[in-house]
Amino acid sequence: MLGREELVSFEFDLDTLVERLAAGRYRARLTDRWNALGGRPNGGYVLSASVRALADAMAATDPLAVSAFFLRPAAPGLASISTEVVRTGRRISTGEVRLVQAEREVLRALVSFADLSAPGGRSVLLAAPPELPPVEDAIDLLGGRSIPDVTIVDRYDYRAAAAPGWVHGKPSGDASMMFWLRFRDERPVDTLALVAMVDAAWPAVLELGEAGSSTVELTVHIRARPQPGWLACRVRTRYVIGGYHEEDFEIWDRDGHLVAQSRQLALLA
Amino acid sequence: MLGREELVSFEFDLDTLVERLAAGRYRARLTDRWNALGGRPNGGYVLSASVRALADAMAATDPLAVSAFFLRPAAPGLASISTEVVRTGRRISTGEVRLVQAEREVLRALVSFADLSAPGGRSVLLAAPPELPPVEDAIDLLGGRSIPDVTIVDRYDYRAAAAPGWVHGKPSGDASMMFWLRFRDERPVDTLALVAMVDAAWPAVLELGEAGSSTVELTVHIRARPQPGWLACRVRTRYVIGGYHEEDFEIWDRDGHLVAQSRQLALLA
Repeated sequence: MLGREELVSFEFDLDTLVERLAAGRYRARLTDRWNALGGRPNGGYVLSASVRALADAMAATDPLAVSAFFLRPAAPGLASISTEVVRTGRRISTGEVRLVQAEREVLRALVSFADLSAPGGRSVLLAAPPELPPVEDAIDLLGGRSIPDVTIVDRYDYRAAAAPGWVHGKPSGDASMMFWLRFRDERPVDTLALVAMVDAAWPAVLELGEAGSSTVELTVHIRARPQPGWLACRVRTRYVIGGYHEEDFEIWDRDGHLVAQSRQLALLA
Repeated sequence: MLGREELVSFEFDLDTLVERLAAGRYRARLTDRWNALGGRPNGGYVLSASVRALADAMAATDPLAVSAFFLRPAAPGLASISTEVVRTGRRISTGEVRLVQAEREVLRALVSFADLSAPGGRSVLLAAPPELPPVEDAIDLLGGRSIPDVTIVDRYDYRAAAAPGWVHGKPSGDASMMFWLRFRDERPVDTLALVAMVDAAWPAVLELGEAGSSTVELTVHIRARPQPGWLACRVRTRYVIGGYHEEDFEIWDRDGHLVAQSRQLALLA
């Protein structure tokens, strides 16, 4: 019997589709279904299409460490992606990818890949997963509503104990949040999708009364392949200095495994 | 009157010296004075020489976001460095740098630069600086001793409330530490030196009884220019999974300003 993932085309897979034109050259079509505040394609979405092309070029499995520099805002529409194999190692392979629109470079990223199917080596967890109510008892943070121009929120489901303060016009002053996350079409989450998901929520600085945040650099470390089901997220900004701030994002699966850890440096919008 | 920094050649400046051969091409000579566990030049040291070349090529002031992928171990001796200007922006400029030894790429990094002399914009601190005794009351963690082959510890002074457990053969099981840090020759710390300093201590996983750690990827965010004097450091590893682990490093100046924040993904040695 075929699983549903073989019968259904999921939004994420359709919208990150890359067409191989030649060795190291790909074409993508960024859609308007993943737009963030400002009506521009979300950085994590643009990055995941880029990483998908690089993984194809390198015949690689799991992204392990991804660092992306966001040079210009992306726009819905055609994008050219070029890839370079930097080093093929026994355990870790590294490549570089550039995404260009209208002859201007939008994003450049370095990515190390590894096979995370067979983890070996020691594990020690010195911090706990996010504390969240069971998904069944959590509330839909958007209450089924859409946000004009912010189409990305229609691609995901967000569930938490309570809605963040900014939603009601009362930012808490604490730039942290915890919530359950999944694709709304229930696409199974693999390590490529985690690269998009660490950037899939509203900026934590909205709880400081800020209007938005634009990413300068995003580093993602993939720590394990997630088990199926909802993912538990913990997001936090500790230091805003001269407008620059970090945002730390952790994603855990329902079995209590940390699967992704990211940090971005961003600038208040 | 000239300050001492104009009269004295400091070790860090001598050992990260880069010679410009042509546009975008530099030569460096890595010394054996910054060797880490294993007798290889420390990654932060190699990275700071690379960033120095790129800053020269871009006529840039402060590194803002640095992401380095460590492809092969470096060795003391000659290195070729090539630089590329990726984007020159009004506020942020981005470039790429590669360091090659014996025709093999050792390190590739993407770097965004900005001018941090005139910070503008909002600041909010939601976490506190490290809690350390005054430097005068803190102990020298190495007690003036050297460690065979680990020459980097002769370049820095480390002071803390107490020596880490691993020093006495009794790892605490808590992979975190706080200490004061400065160059032993008291070189004033600028934003370039911070890129080296976030990698200048022993791995936090030594407190888990591990023998060492090798860096896969290191991201450094420079948050401010430090005031003169000792720097307060806080280092922590929370998650070791299949041997891979993150190490978070914060550096604060004596005035209580966060000046650098880094995370590296590393593999148990």
